[in-house]
Amino acid sequence: MPESKPLVLAAPEPRTLELIFKPQKLEELHTRYEVLEVPADEVASMGREVLERVRYILGQPPIAEETLASMTALRSVLNVESNLIDNMPYEEIFRRGIHVLTTGAVFALPVAEMGLAMALNLARGIVSADNDFRAGCELWGGDGNSGSRTLSGSDVGIIGFGDLGKALRRLLEGFRCNIKVFDPWLPPSLLREHGVSPADLGEVLAESDFIFVVSSVTSENRGFLGSEEFASMRQGSVFILLSRADVVDFEALLDAVAAKQIVAASDVYPEEPMPLDHRVRTLDGFLRSAHRAGALDTAFREMGDMVLEDMALMDRGLPPVRCKRAERETARRMRSRPVDVN
Amino acid sequence: MPESKPLVLAAPEPRTLELIFKPQKLEELHTRYEVLEVPADEVASMGREVLERVRYILGQPPIAEETLASMTALRSVLNVESNLIDNMPYEEIFRRGIHVLTTGAVFALPVAEMGLAMALNLARGIVSADNDFRAGCELWGGDGNSGSRTLSGSDVGIIGFGDLGKALRRLLEGFRCNIKVFDPWLPPSLLREHGVSPADLGEVLAESDFIFVVSSVTSENRGFLGSEEFASMRQGSVFILLSRADVVDFEALLDAVAAKQIVAASDVYPEEPMPLDHRVRTLDGFLRSAHRAGALDTAFREMGDMVLEDMALMDRGLPPVRCKRAERETARRMRSRPVDVN
Amino acid sequence: MPESKPLVLAAPEPRTLELIFKPQKLEELHTRYEVLEVPADEVASMGREVLERVRYILGQPPIAEETLASMTALRSVLNVESNLIDNMPYEEIFRRGIHVLTTGAVFALPVAEMGLAMALNLARGIVSADNDFRAGCELWGGDGNSGSRTLSGSDVGIIGFGDLGKALRRLLEGFRCNIKVFDPWLPPSLLREHGVSPADLGEVLAESDFIFVVSSVTSENRGFLGSEEFASMRQGSVFILLSRADVVDFEALLDAVAAKQIVAASDVYPEEPMPLDHRVRTLDGFLRSAHRAGALDTAFREMGDMVLEDMALMDRGLPPVRCKRAERETARRMRSRPVDVN
Amino acid sequence: MPESKPLVLAAPEPRTLELIFKPQKLEELHTRYEVLEVPADEVASMGREVLERVRYILGQPPIAEETLASMTALRSVLNVESNLIDNMPYEEIFRRGIHVLTTGAVFALPVAEMGLAMALNLARGIVSADNDFRAGCELWGGDGNSGSRTLSGSDVGIIGFGDLGKALRRLLEGFRCNIKVFDPWLPPSLLREHGVSPADLGEVLAESDFIFVVSSVTSENRGFLGSEEFASMRQGSVFILLSRADVVDFEALLDAVAAKQIVAASDVYPEEPMPLDHRVRTLDGFLRSAHRAGALDTAFREMGDMVLEDMALMDRGLPPVRCKRAERETARRMRSRPVDVN
Repeated sequence: MPESKPLVLAAPEPRTLELIFKPQKLEELHTRYEVLEVPADEVASMGREVLERVRYILGQPPIAEETLASMTALRSVLNVESNLIDNMPYEEIFRRGIHVLTTGAVFALPVAEMGLAMALNLARGIVSADNDFRAGCELWGGDGNSGSRTLSGSDVGIIGFGDLGKALRRLLEGFRCNIKVFDPWLPPSLLREHGVSPADLGEVLAESDFIFVVSSVTSENRGFLGSEEFASMRQGSVFILLSRADVVDFEALLDAVAAKQIVAASDVYPEEPMPLDHRVRTLDGFLRSAHRAGALDTAFREMGDMVLEDMALMDRGLPPVRCKRAERETARRMRSRPVDVN
Repeated sequence: MPESKPLVLAAPEPRTLELIFKPQKLEELHTRYEVLEVPADEVASMGREVLERVRYILGQPPIAEETLASMTALRSVLNVESNLIDNMPYEEIFRRGIHVLTTGAVFALPVAEMGLAMALNLARGIVSADNDFRAGCELWGGDGNSGSRTLSGSDVGIIGFGDLGKALRRLLEGFRCNIKVFDPWLPPSLLREHGVSPADLGEVLAESDFIFVVSSVTSENRGFLGSEEFASMRQGSVFILLSRADVVDFEALLDAVAAKQIVAASDVYPEEPMPLDHRVRTLDGFLRSAHRAGALDTAFREMGDMVLEDMALMDRGLPPVRCKRAERETARRMRSRPVDVN
Repeated sequence: MPESKPLVLAAPEPRTLELIFKPQKLEELHTRYEVLEVPADEVASMGREVLERVRYILGQPPIAEETLASMTALRSVLNVESNLIDNMPYEEIFRRGIHVLTTGAVFALPVAEMGLAMALNLARGIVSADNDFRAGCELWGGDGNSGSRTLSGSDVGIIGFGDLGKALRRLLEGFRCNIKVFDPWLPPSLLREHGVSPADLGEVLAESDFIFVVSSVTSENRGFLGSEEFASMRQGSVFILLSRADVVDFEALLDAVAAKQIVAASDVYPEEPMPLDHRVRTLDGFLRSAHRAGALDTAFREMGDMVLEDMALMDRGLPPVRCKRAERETARRMRSRPVDVN
Repeated sequence: MPESKPLVLAAPEPRTLELIFKPQKLEELHTRYEVLEVPADEVASMGREVLERVRYILGQPPIAEETLASMTALRSVLNVESNLIDNMPYEEIFRRGIHVLTTGAVFALPVAEMGLAMALNLARGIVSADNDFRAGCELWGGDGNSGSRTLSGSDVGIIGFGDLGKALRRLLEGFRCNIKVFDPWLPPSLLREHGVSPADLGEVLAESDFIFVVSSVTSENRGFLGSEEFASMRQGSVFILLSRADVVDFEALLDAVAAKQIVAASDVYPEEPMPLDHRVRTLDGFLRSAHRAGALDTAFREMGDMVLEDMALMDRGLPPVRCKRAERETARRMRSRPVDVN
């Protein structure tokens, strides 16, 4: 009697179920649940007799108030796009205790690895050394190492300490760095428990050899890193931008690199792609990555694991613990644009 | 009465005292010791009244048997070049309990960082992604990630577990890899204590996603990695050569890369520099570094710290513990060529 | 204008503000807030003009529905007793998004240290060795070590993986144990991320040398460890009970110790104090602690720190992250009795 | 042809081969080597044709110069008692490059666990709490915790940083203590690499909540901890003596405990056993262990593993790395008395 299975409404655009579930896990999904896949914009027109059976929504289709009201069995919206759009009556969702879950944590580890790779690259001039070697003008031994430095034991600053900041800190364990963290949403004691020093923004900027920006963009922090901030950094320090371009004044960043105040790398840009004639494409001291830091197949596939684990808990009347819960207080403050491509 | 200070005979070629001591430490050296700097080839012609006062030799000048016999107060040869040449009567040196110390451990950390950087580079295609971005043909998001993978949680093989292998293992701590080590000079239990799995060479080659070669070249292991060994590796695995080119059949390595069996990076070469028309310069899937992995000023400067700490212990009649001691059994087996440039 | 400060209603019984705040923090509380201290049972009779100004409740006084309705500015109930009693309209509290926070995490570390101390004690027979030494009948060296064993490298089972289980795992880091965890409220992947192996209850019982019970008592797990479970444990294994006596069949536990099936320690008892003639008082192979594991002054004093940090976040419209949030799903399942004494 | 096997001369008194080898490892010993077991005092009278075939000595039998001269194939003395007696011509042994190895490292972990157990016991009053509970006069909850404290986050001092000190540091990892170490035989940088702060003796004594004494007794440090040193410690600090009684003025230690200046535990005593009427037997604030900290069967059995691993390396002409090597400089400075019983 398949009707007895709980109903999952799947509208994972721009993801697909095949992208986010390993084959075996997709099978598990279908074994445990009745799965109704629909285009996001057709949810509104579904019949009441279906809506009232929906236990989980997979994705973030637009949901009107009356649609939500019909979904009397709804326990959770599992948003696998993970950048919250304001297209549901969140206030009522929270009132009803429906969990709004996001799976962006899967990107933390690959992005953190990319960030570390960028830092080591800039610290050792790896790209230009390889290009010089190709061109036959490489410098050998110590002669090729002017400006080279180690990450181990250095002063590291991390701006933002969510999943990504935590993943980065873990990767840095073996490097025994002195890590300062600025995150205005977290209390000092919690940062200390992670073995990092709480600091204000000014300290992080002025006292770091390597700075990693991994904070979400919110209604309050757009462009909070501008020319003044870049000027306050240590001369020659390494600046890595991993989260969203909107948190920096991007032209000021490029100016600081052009002036050799800092070296920098970025995975994100104010426009994607950037114009073909933009100076970012040729600037020396700048390492470019085309928003590829997180988008690994292995990362997408972990989303399915997370979703299945939390649905199993919620099926038993327990709270979800694997995905991240959107919070009433902050859901509306987020300003990350949803992705068009995976 | 400056004569009362112990005498240090300094012949650190190709290093210089300024290279290996921070200014403050060089001052400490001169405060604690009488320092006699001589060209390496003039040691033989020094007078007996000087030789008999020498407590420490800094460097590895050629020493004849009769010169050694005159050095009745000699306690240690502190070889700051660190590749042992067979230019001293080592047998008698060991009989007399004179410590032969090397300072190569200072390179372990910068080389390990370079090795990790190379691994992350190849895993994420960072060099070609940056070059593509410069050229305006970059791929965005997941489209640019075919072949990309994470290091975290992967199977790692390390060949050789001296200072460099240990430094690499430490840097990998936060990545939670499954690490196999092949080192025929170390017993399994000691490897296990470092949290790695002892393995034979075949297992390391066949069961790793990333392979780091960090073993010294000895009289027994020249060219021990050849075409057969490369063929046994996982298709697409990442091979990083950090120690000495002589341990691999270099052409076989390039063949394996050209055939897309593996991707690879190397800091060392059979000839340095390599000919301008050598295929290594343009081979895709190969990342080039011109013997720069260890030669950082900060590394050289640590040598002085090590030397001063161990001399302080030996001054008090205690054994040295900071530098590495050459061993009677293995001193003659080493085949690393000494460096000409730092 | 002191009225402009947010109002805190303090009814921390059986705690006192002096117990839970360090003097300097108590001052900070009074500087930042207007603090109204009232006996718990007088909250109901407070006037509407006060109630509507209350931003935080410190404690868990009984709150009627109409009282709650009057508290229109209420953001959080900070329950410093930390065992939830069913004396508030929780459903409405959750609907309104008022955070119910508990501070029991302060006890995790001292209890975990006590648990580790108990395990090492039983593994080495420390109490009886000291008593024998006092009595002049001690055995020296290996003769005194029959039955002694090390914790390092052993198989450890942890039942329950909340704050206490996590604290215990952290203390065990240096011991390199093989740790299995049973916690039905957590998914396997989350346990693996903490470096422990998820296991079912049967495995934990049958395959451990040391078993720590640190799970809360809920409506579902009363007495889930009985004679059958004790019989399934390894002969001679060490059983440590740290959370609540109600999760075990206490007489069956004592029987298993009396039969020398296991050795055991407990900090909690079905009656506190236990009758003077109860066999628990003299049983060999049993280590007794009179509910003292967590009740350290330093632990109580940390509550104030937590509360102040989370109120600072909530003052800024941010969600609390330091205290533990009660969950809609599980708040009613908890069955720990509140304490009478601190 | 069994004569072709290398010859091991076994005189392990007071150990026995059965004590130090697991059954399977004893079999391996006999498979790989010809083993000649002799009473220690009969080595001198053995024939030259046997002596010249001896490759390894297992134990520390008295060896005369002429006996040594006959042992032309000798590569190593594997001293499984591990406290060096001056009963061999060590100078000539070292000249010949014969490795003198000790296996005392096997005791490091069990002794470190005992030390940690003692520290936690004294910090929480576990023995007296259990005795009070037996007697029906226990105090419940916080009432029983006057003087209780946690080890986590405290200031810890370690005196001596050999195998035992290092094992202790590792066990303390999860406790996140601030660890100061005094060891005059080690340079500061090496201590820092182990994550501890180098300190002089005065600092360690005056600035620690817990002090662990794990230094060997040498010709220079007998009784270096006396009444003045105990007076300099923090009031109420915890003092744990694990290595040798000779490093402290034992009566001064007991005085400091009697005066409630410190609390203390010891595994070692000036006389073993101590007289039945000695005050150490009844002193409050003192925890007694009868030299049992290291003497675990599992520890003894590890000796065989170590010995087999190092002999395998030496058989191949490689230096041993598993056992500890006696050093020319310090072999004669050691003053630990050999044990009579295991």
